[in-house]
Amino acid sequence: MEEQPIIVLLTDFGTGDAFVGVMKGVIASICRQSRVIDLTHAVRAQDITEAAFHLESALPYFPDGTIFVCVVDPGVGTSRRPIAVEAGPFRFLAPDNGLLTPIFERWPDARCRVLDDARHHLPSPSSTFHGRDIFSPVAAHLATGMAFDTLGTTAPPESCTRIERFTNRPLERKKGWTGRVVTIDRFGNVVTSFCATTLDGGDAWCVSAGSSGCLPIVKAYGDVDDGMPLAYVGSSGMIEIAVRNGDASRELGIDRQTPIRLVALRRPE
Amino acid sequence: MEEQPIIVLLTDFGTGDAFVGVMKGVIASICRQSRVIDLTHAVRAQDITEAAFHLESALPYFPDGTIFVCVVDPGVGTSRRPIAVEAGPFRFLAPDNGLLTPIFERWPDARCRVLDDARHHLPSPSSTFHGRDIFSPVAAHLATGMAFDTLGTTAPPESCTRIERFTNRPLERKKGWTGRVVTIDRFGNVVTSFCATTLDGGDAWCVSAGSSGCLPIVKAYGDVDDGMPLAYVGSSGMIEIAVRNGDASRELGIDRQTPIRLVALRRPE
Amino acid sequence: MEEQPIIVLLTDFGTGDAFVGVMKGVIASICRQSRVIDLTHAVRAQDITEAAFHLESALPYFPDGTIFVCVVDPGVGTSRRPIAVEAGPFRFLAPDNGLLTPIFERWPDARCRVLDDARHHLPSPSSTFHGRDIFSPVAAHLATGMAFDTLGTTAPPESCTRIERFTNRPLERKKGWTGRVVTIDRFGNVVTSFCATTLDGGDAWCVSAGSSGCLPIVKAYGDVDDGMPLAYVGSSGMIEIAVRNGDASRELGIDRQTPIRLVALRRPE
Repeated sequence: MEEQPIIVLLTDFGTGDAFVGVMKGVIASICRQSRVIDLTHAVRAQDITEAAFHLESALPYFPDGTIFVCVVDPGVGTSRRPIAVEAGPFRFLAPDNGLLTPIFERWPDARCRVLDDARHHLPSPSSTFHGRDIFSPVAAHLATGMAFDTLGTTAPPESCTRIERFTNRPLERKKGWTGRVVTIDRFGNVVTSFCATTLDGGDAWCVSAGSSGCLPIVKAYGDVDDGMPLAYVGSSGMIEIAVRNGDASRELGIDRQTPIRLVALRRPE
Repeated sequence: MEEQPIIVLLTDFGTGDAFVGVMKGVIASICRQSRVIDLTHAVRAQDITEAAFHLESALPYFPDGTIFVCVVDPGVGTSRRPIAVEAGPFRFLAPDNGLLTPIFERWPDARCRVLDDARHHLPSPSSTFHGRDIFSPVAAHLATGMAFDTLGTTAPPESCTRIERFTNRPLERKKGWTGRVVTIDRFGNVVTSFCATTLDGGDAWCVSAGSSGCLPIVKAYGDVDDGMPLAYVGSSGMIEIAVRNGDASRELGIDRQTPIRLVALRRPE
Repeated sequence: MEEQPIIVLLTDFGTGDAFVGVMKGVIASICRQSRVIDLTHAVRAQDITEAAFHLESALPYFPDGTIFVCVVDPGVGTSRRPIAVEAGPFRFLAPDNGLLTPIFERWPDARCRVLDDARHHLPSPSSTFHGRDIFSPVAAHLATGMAFDTLGTTAPPESCTRIERFTNRPLERKKGWTGRVVTIDRFGNVVTSFCATTLDGGDAWCVSAGSSGCLPIVKAYGDVDDGMPLAYVGSSGMIEIAVRNGDASRELGIDRQTPIRLVALRRPE
């Protein structure tokens, strides 16, 4: 492999501990020339949906050949399987808990292996830190050029766990939908579980949450006055709720548990 | 370019989201061999003055050729211009909102371009995330060796926005000055907007803020007893207020809004 | 040196300021090709014991030749010495304040130098930021291949400061021991100062802290029911206290000051 291989880390480990640093040590020990990029380690503890959102949003911005190591793993130490997936130009390592749902949806022909060949793990893996003992060494071995097929037993993609997502559900214009908050960013902008591509079709839509009232989907912050709430298609392709030059989460009383409503403003012809 | 090019990131994006990770993906996609260094992503949201301080403090410690990408951008999505500046041994990318004031002050002969050539941006840039869609790809293109002059239209440095800084104002020994808090670091040390170089000239100066009383400027922590407040020239060249083995912010009641007073202890001859 | 040298940073500087970014600038200025890995910068301010724990836990996962730069430095600006230690396959830079205790315990034949040769420092080092002015440039010079022996005056390892650790103390089965909380991780798991290797010998042990009651040491989370507390040997080799799918710190009322008790369940024959 001539180019410096890229390994992306996405976890809920935080950076307050040495977990992530140690994973990088393991990777450097096996594949010195790899380049490690932190996507984020601040996924809410055990929130698989948020991790899947960050992964899906980031995909278009990484070069072909990138290896994504995604460890949000409520089931660590239980019988849930650690898996590797080869899909499009990428490879992914994650626990089989639904985190890779967007990958399976986008590439139905993805190839999947269970990471059950202990030769590629650290000796005597712990039951609590597979990020260090299984996922990091496997990622580094892949980066050195090890063949995907040697990682472990084949698993059919259909056997892998999926999480329910808005885009799985049929359009129900009359009743509207109830979605959830996927993440709230540093600026208080609220990312909803509604994907903009689902809204094609000439309707006008309206989003509400907390005390926002019914917000039509506008194009940019500049479309509303300072201090006013708006709904728009965020940089990730999801519908977001914000307050112009404000903090939507605080000002509209929206937290991670607040339900989000999406309704059609007018009926289709 | 033989050496690995260095790109420094300075933003208010935090690391709780995937914003910064995605910027690194964009950079790696265009210039695989670049090395990205995070200066900090914890600038207070939209605080241009704090970002300018971090940039200015860091400059002397980076090698010639470094490309600084500075994105604290309250005006994203409005008509404020994204600019590139070539000054001394460095290049800088930022919104034209005053963040680069220290650069224009230090290098009056800086050369400036508006980033209006869309060929160097990502296709269909969003209106909310120019860090990803404009600044990162331009930085990566520069790192691959693209000529500065091809970035976009020339802009005279005088046309660029500046923020007011202490060093812009004349010395007024009799009345003293009122400054502000630029940042408070993790240890509770308070960085003021007073630059030590302004104080040359044989006077003795005294700083006060919150409940600190009048603090003469001493040389080191060791010059005062444990638990006592002091003012000194910080590692950045700015006057700072601290408590020896304590937390000045908490113990002296100083927050980001607290005014800082600087007065001459004795009149000049 | 053919391989890319690795420099690991471990500090209590946080990432809310530009301290760490500036250290990386200094390193890149001297040794462009080095690779810097953040172990963590979130050590509790001035907590030497926590830093020593993270260093010791991480050691086995880094490749031979790694240079560890450890800056938790309550005494910066006083007469405490900055030192370099060569031990096993590694080199370490730190203030002489006990942070390197695990290194001296593991490698009694470690070689130590005082960093008193100013040629390897930045010119006019500040009295408050030796991480930038002394430790970073020395690390980078080592990474370029500079000989360890040229760093400064030899110091006998016995002259270096040690911190008291559980493993220093004799086993007292009848009375048990009182230990302390070393760190609490993002998930609320409590790392105690009790090292599992000390417990060899056929006894069964029980740990208690806060409202945990007496917890026998089990093998994995799966050994207790959901929501129940457990004690186990953590991924670092220390005894940890957790709640299965819960937050032990919050649910058992354990904070950094809570004492930890370790007692033998039955007497040895």
